[in-house]
Amino acid sequence: MSNDHLHAMRHTAAHVLAAAAERLYPGVKLGVGPVIDNGFFYDIAFPEPISEANLAKLEKTMRRIIAEAHAMEREEMSIDEAIAFFADKGQEFKVELLKDLKEKGTTKMNPDEAQDIDVDNPDRASVYKTGEFVDLCRGPHIENVKGIGAFKLWKLAGAYWRGNEENAQLQRVYGLCFETQEELDAYIHMLEEAKKRDHRKLGKELDLFVFSELVGPGLPLWTPKGAFLRQKLDDFVWALRSVRGYKRVEIPHITKKDLYETSGHWEKFKDDLFKVETREGHVFAMKPMNCPHHTQIFDRKMHSYRDMPQRFANTTMVYRDEQTGELHGLSRVRSITQDDAHVFCRQGQVKEEMLKIWDIIETFYKGCGFGELAVRLSFHDPEHPEKYLGTPETWQQSEDALRDLAKARGVEAVEEPGEAAFYGPKIDFVTKDSLGREWQVATIQLDMNMPERFDLTCINEEGSPERIVMIHAAIMGSLERFLSNYIEHTAGVFPFWLAPVQVRLATVSQEQVEAASRIQAELVEAGVRAELDDSDERLGKKIRNAAMEKIPWTIVIGGKEAEGGDFKVNVFGQEEDLVIPAGELAARAAADSKFPM
Amino acid sequence: MSNDHLHAMRHTAAHVLAAAAERLYPGVKLGVGPVIDNGFFYDIAFPEPISEANLAKLEKTMRRIIAEAHAMEREEMSIDEAIAFFADKGQEFKVELLKDLKEKGTTKMNPDEAQDIDVDNPDRASVYKTGEFVDLCRGPHIENVKGIGAFKLWKLAGAYWRGNEENAQLQRVYGLCFETQEELDAYIHMLEEAKKRDHRKLGKELDLFVFSELVGPGLPLWTPKGAFLRQKLDDFVWALRSVRGYKRVEIPHITKKDLYETSGHWEKFKDDLFKVETREGHVFAMKPMNCPHHTQIFDRKMHSYRDMPQRFANTTMVYRDEQTGELHGLSRVRSITQDDAHVFCRQGQVKEEMLKIWDIIETFYKGCGFGELAVRLSFHDPEHPEKYLGTPETWQQSEDALRDLAKARGVEAVEEPGEAAFYGPKIDFVTKDSLGREWQVATIQLDMNMPERFDLTCINEEGSPERIVMIHAAIMGSLERFLSNYIEHTAGVFPFWLAPVQVRLATVSQEQVEAASRIQAELVEAGVRAELDDSDERLGKKIRNAAMEKIPWTIVIGGKEAEGGDFKVNVFGQEEDLVIPAGELAARAAADSKFPM
Repeated sequence: MSNDHLHAMRHTAAHVLAAAAERLYPGVKLGVGPVIDNGFFYDIAFPEPISEANLAKLEKTMRRIIAEAHAMEREEMSIDEAIAFFADKGQEFKVELLKDLKEKGTTKMNPDEAQDIDVDNPDRASVYKTGEFVDLCRGPHIENVKGIGAFKLWKLAGAYWRGNEENAQLQRVYGLCFETQEELDAYIHMLEEAKKRDHRKLGKELDLFVFSELVGPGLPLWTPKGAFLRQKLDDFVWALRSVRGYKRVEIPHITKKDLYETSGHWEKFKDDLFKVETREGHVFAMKPMNCPHHTQIFDRKMHSYRDMPQRFANTTMVYRDEQTGELHGLSRVRSITQDDAHVFCRQGQVKEEMLKIWDIIETFYKGCGFGELAVRLSFHDPEHPEKYLGTPETWQQSEDALRDLAKARGVEAVEEPGEAAFYGPKIDFVTKDSLGREWQVATIQLDMNMPERFDLTCINEEGSPERIVMIHAAIMGSLERFLSNYIEHTAGVFPFWLAPVQVRLATVSQEQVEAASRIQAELVEAGVRAELDDSDERLGKKIRNAAMEKIPWTIVIGGKEAEGGDFKVNVFGQEEDLVIPAGELAARAAADSKFPM
Repeated sequence: MSNDHLHAMRHTAAHVLAAAAERLYPGVKLGVGPVIDNGFFYDIAFPEPISEANLAKLEKTMRRIIAEAHAMEREEMSIDEAIAFFADKGQEFKVELLKDLKEKGTTKMNPDEAQDIDVDNPDRASVYKTGEFVDLCRGPHIENVKGIGAFKLWKLAGAYWRGNEENAQLQRVYGLCFETQEELDAYIHMLEEAKKRDHRKLGKELDLFVFSELVGPGLPLWTPKGAFLRQKLDDFVWALRSVRGYKRVEIPHITKKDLYETSGHWEKFKDDLFKVETREGHVFAMKPMNCPHHTQIFDRKMHSYRDMPQRFANTTMVYRDEQTGELHGLSRVRSITQDDAHVFCRQGQVKEEMLKIWDIIETFYKGCGFGELAVRLSFHDPEHPEKYLGTPETWQQSEDALRDLAKARGVEAVEEPGEAAFYGPKIDFVTKDSLGREWQVATIQLDMNMPERFDLTCINEEGSPERIVMIHAAIMGSLERFLSNYIEHTAGVFPFWLAPVQVRLATVSQEQVEAASRIQAELVEAGVRAELDDSDERLGKKIRNAAMEKIPWTIVIGGKEAEGGDFKVNVFGQEEDLVIPAGELAARAAADSKFPM
């Protein structure tokens, strides 16, 4: 099934929606009705605003029109004929588009728009007929409305004509549309799942983070459980890094702007930086990234080639002045925690160091329960060299190195020109979550430009300074963004090693409290995060509470267990209980608490 | 020995210095010569500037004058007589002081100065005679110069007349002065030690931190070794906290100013805050403390009395807009890392929670090698209630609670009115370092005001909201300031459990490299930070290098050790070697690596 056909089919469905609206609500005025990722929408001014409750009726009328099996007939006319035609039908929005076209030669309101709306020729207009319904349209469409696959009207929203809040307010009717009913059902299921898994909803239910009106939007506050998750995930990254020779460094969150003038960030990003005024009138900036600070640690002294590479790791918050309207839960925030690392090394060490990072990334994502990662080579855009630092030769050399690396690793890597950082090309890793959505996560970047700008060298075997290179590497990238994905991927059911509370002991009655406390103490002593519910609630309620909190193991402590019998562990999301002999519980839980590396 | 007598003696020594200057360099013009902490100084305009080399001669002349055993004779005269007298001697600075007194009724240049210079009566001036030398002076002095104890001219500096750089530049001659030679010698020894131990010098030698011109003053960058120290110390604090029920939280470094308007910090500290302008024109502030942010985490939901106390720990950087001239190494910085904690609890839980914090503080400082801590109760100033939040009753109640606590703990606590935080009284802990200098370190603060302003409650046994209280607790306080003290206290010789590198293995020849690598691997496997020096340097050089880095254990690996013989551990700062059987090295080192708790 071609994308073109799917597009045409969705476009035809939009016309059927408009036709149904006209049939049901005479006098509707039609805006535009484009195709979108999962179907289509149409912006319509109804004589009286409709509600979600009206969608079923609208959908039924659409099905009737489809059953009538109208052909989609194209006709052309001159612009003036078209204006007269739509004016006659009272379709003022269509008339406005056509008049713009006639006067300005385009319907675009600004040059950034991809194409003209509904017309592809400034001299001629095309219309499509669907039975009695006629719409201004560039096409293409499928031949007959009966070819429309499975569809469903989905939701209703407000929309201003041409996106301008000074214009008339229309209603936007959204439709989902797929080739087959199976695809539509799967998509609807995914939508429902995604809604249930929304990290903002789960974040509240699982008590992971909170936003405060007083602190401000885009600035999440991390509760004990959320802070624990962050720390544990970061500890996992650190465990993978420390055995590979990384050392932690630490830096302040501000700097004189001089640092970014040298690095080139000031010129490039100064509008996106939070700027800080001091009482003495200096201009400081909050750091939007860590590399320039790290160069200053590397550059504190001479390094012999024997001491190379130097590998710095630093999990720290960076700040970006995002617009309020663009903030979204944890996925777009102003305070971004990066698990950042920079390797300062010689040219000949690049491959080995990058492969080590690649190992870390694979182990980490596997340990978190993601499937295989897709790999993208983000290269510079050769048509816009002005967007980047450095020479074409440096870029060629760096990009070749990344190509070789992907080859050495034996992966299919997609090349994406124009996706590089301004200082160098990247290897980006993309996960697919449990709903099939793709997220760009980890990144490895090769940088020959910062070392040039900061004049970073090591002393080589000949005793001369030798230009080094930098590798930028983040595993989770932004912890906030990673967690927004990860919460949705897992639906808040975290693996045993990671869960803030791993084990919930639930007593049957007060008689087992003493024994249960002893069992809890043993678990805690072994480093397991075990809680005891010894309240007077009924057992069923206790078990349900543990399940609500998605605690991996719930263990009922009744008379038998209190006397040393085997434990029956109720594993979250699993039918079958796990049976563990009394003497082995703490050791088994402790073993399962280790990082999956 | 009374402080008054010491003061008078030092003051007399200043006169003797001036007398010696006049005898040696006729035509000197004298500024002022006050007493300071360790002796005295005199600001003098010499006919030709002198150099440090001249101090010995000046000191010799002072000793001659003391040997002459002059009495210190006081005389009084009218202001006009005094002006004529000093004008006649060409002492223009004294004349200026006297004229000020005559015209303005004071010699103070601004009302903040503590007292008039050299005179205590606007109508009469007193002078003191020392043999042929006469100086304008309010006194008091000792009776005879022969009563001056031990002294030494110490250093020479530049000083503008009356501290104004538009005035004449004088030379400031510093003298140390104590009752006895022993005290003077001890003080000189301390000065030499302090110079050797200066944390800025040791920080560079031990490669712990660095400042960058591009990043800016007051913003330390932490190298791998320095970052390790910070992390390990903070892990120790965390180990002490986590077993006492603390949970980590995490917060951003900025906030809307609304948060500080509610907390009262904005009104109080707005000039000391770094302010951040956003692209949308909002005013954000960088946080200068963490309590207001933490209240927002506590306040995210209702808390039952059963869930109280809630204990939040958070090691995070705060920012203060310090003036450049006041910055000093790590002891005064702009980016301050606090090991902060806030306990949200009920009134009845305050005592137990504070005692727990007290335990943490004692264990931590003992584990770091400090002696007993002095305790200070920092209370509000009842004469300036406008400086504080809250009612006199609240303050009374809070301060009584702290008094009771100190009593319960059985310590002698000094009460210091006027030293409280603006929201509540504090228990401050003061260490004495190895040079006898006192540093205020940890703090416990009781706060009934923030909970009021943020309306923080828990639901009590009756199901009603009950106002809670907050306890603020920092163990190291500022990690930067703690480390500046701790580096000087230890002279960079950190305890085994804390040292960034704990063990250095030094091979005698290339023959032992394999065995030494195996020993190193065993140590690393056991979690010990062990390095191997298998270079071709001579053994003596290797041992000296390890000592330069102040590594706790240096172990020479020769033929015998390579073959499994006992290890002779050269312990830094210890004469006697520590002998450890081969099979026990890793276990012993790992045991000694545990936190001293």
